[in-house]
Amino acid sequence: MRDFSNDHRWLSLNTATVRKQGDFVAIAEACARHKIRGVSPWRDQVAHVGLDKAVKAVKDHDLELSGYCRGGMFVSDEAHRQLQRDDNKRCVDEAVALGSPCIVLVVGGLPQYSRPGSAPSKNIINARAQVDDGIAEMMEYARQAKMPLAIEPLHPAYAADRACVNTTEQALDICDRLDPNRTGMLGVALDVYHIWWDPELHAQIARAGQDRLLAFHVCDWLVPTKDILNDRGMMGDGVIDIRSARTAVEAQGFAGYCEIEIFSENWWSKSMDEVLATCIERHKTVV
Amino acid sequence: MRDFSNDHRWLSLNTATVRKQGDFVAIAEACARHKIRGVSPWRDQVAHVGLDKAVKAVKDHDLELSGYCRGGMFVSDEAHRQLQRDDNKRCVDEAVALGSPCIVLVVGGLPQYSRPGSAPSKNIINARAQVDDGIAEMMEYARQAKMPLAIEPLHPAYAADRACVNTTEQALDICDRLDPNRTGMLGVALDVYHIWWDPELHAQIARAGQDRLLAFHVCDWLVPTKDILNDRGMMGDGVIDIRSARTAVEAQGFAGYCEIEIFSENWWSKSMDEVLATCIERHKTVV
Repeated sequence: MRDFSNDHRWLSLNTATVRKQGDFVAIAEACARHKIRGVSPWRDQVAHVGLDKAVKAVKDHDLELSGYCRGGMFVSDEAHRQLQRDDNKRCVDEAVALGSPCIVLVVGGLPQYSRPGSAPSKNIINARAQVDDGIAEMMEYARQAKMPLAIEPLHPAYAADRACVNTTEQALDICDRLDPNRTGMLGVALDVYHIWWDPELHAQIARAGQDRLLAFHVCDWLVPTKDILNDRGMMGDGVIDIRSARTAVEAQGFAGYCEIEIFSENWWSKSMDEVLATCIERHKTVV
Repeated sequence: MRDFSNDHRWLSLNTATVRKQGDFVAIAEACARHKIRGVSPWRDQVAHVGLDKAVKAVKDHDLELSGYCRGGMFVSDEAHRQLQRDDNKRCVDEAVALGSPCIVLVVGGLPQYSRPGSAPSKNIINARAQVDDGIAEMMEYARQAKMPLAIEPLHPAYAADRACVNTTEQALDICDRLDPNRTGMLGVALDVYHIWWDPELHAQIARAGQDRLLAFHVCDWLVPTKDILNDRGMMGDGVIDIRSARTAVEAQGFAGYCEIEIFSENWWSKSMDEVLATCIERHKTVV
């Protein structure tokens, strides 16, 4: 396993972690100030400053992307299908412009939450079938752009409203169905927050192998978790054995960024510099 | 599938659903008033009125039990091991006195939450091994008392603090290991709240079969869920396709009570009669 104790060369900052403290340009500047080399921007944060300005900020500060968040939300009723297709094509174009190595896919849950305005349904089996179709379709466009797609299984607590792909096994089953030849264009983004509880975790990481492991995210699970979306923990403050997860992905050959993604009202209330300094310290000591 | 639309013969009330509105005796009286025939008491509610009085209330109102909540919390450090053993033996004795058909097992998560005071650990793999050992040990005592144990897989959101058995597959794997001959002394308690999201759900219900399906619980998953423990929904108010789950268990021959268990600050704030009347109406229309 790589030794992170002396530097933070492989720390990437998911920009949602400090989304309330500044815009994307300010975040890029702060990363440069803290010698953070990787970022993973969210589409709304890029849109807020404009794509050109975001691309310039990445170049000016010599940043690399570890991913682009997020494509997906494939589940909808028929009336919202074209919206979804166009939206995901634009996502590919933006990811190319920013030089991202992949797009993280949050696949969507039930249609009324995935694409608001869609006719409500309780049929999660149908939703999952739509996800397969949606990814297959997006892959055609992404393949032309040579942009890999990384399916992120989300914690089962988000099955209704964010993603009906809830385990690593399920995500890899999709990879096997849609990219049986392992072309490198489809894989998974694994976030310890979503998968730490899974009894199949280590077996599925081994099954994924290096070529399907496109991204690795860290934060922590707090007990109690006061808010299921926005009370994620700083690494070391919760119950996840983060190092054991990193050991498992690196045993498969994963050698990319450890991306810190923390949705937290607590950390959003602190200064950008304090958050980044804490991320760096925890990256060295507990990741 | 059984037709529930005309009566509520197969409705059982888990007493946690109205735990703030009255003690166990008051709940038993309310059930009789609403012609509810089944209850599933919690140990603390029984202890509050005293076991003898609880047994008398069950007899006086001609109630049947659909389960007894809860045994388990098997994970601890060495210093708390004997406490756990004694506690679970007492649970068996109480269940026998009350005439319960089974004990619902909530197996415990990490030791510091499962048995407070235990040395903290982040090792969920160890916790799971302890659960196997703990169930095996409890089974010896329960078998003599002819009291079946029903492992309840809890939603992965509770993996740290309540139960590290988080899928039906995992619970059935334990059943296969500890009761390979399917003696009827070990099975599962399935609550739609915990398992509705699981892509393996229907396959695992089929795998369980009638003899492993010892209890079936209903409530609903609200979007948003404001509190991961105490914001469960009344059936019909959330996103779970409850009828499809009931169809699946009944296809295996399950013919017991549909137990309503709702932890909800919202429903705890209403009168006992209003809650029971609503339970009956929803039992007829959406369960």
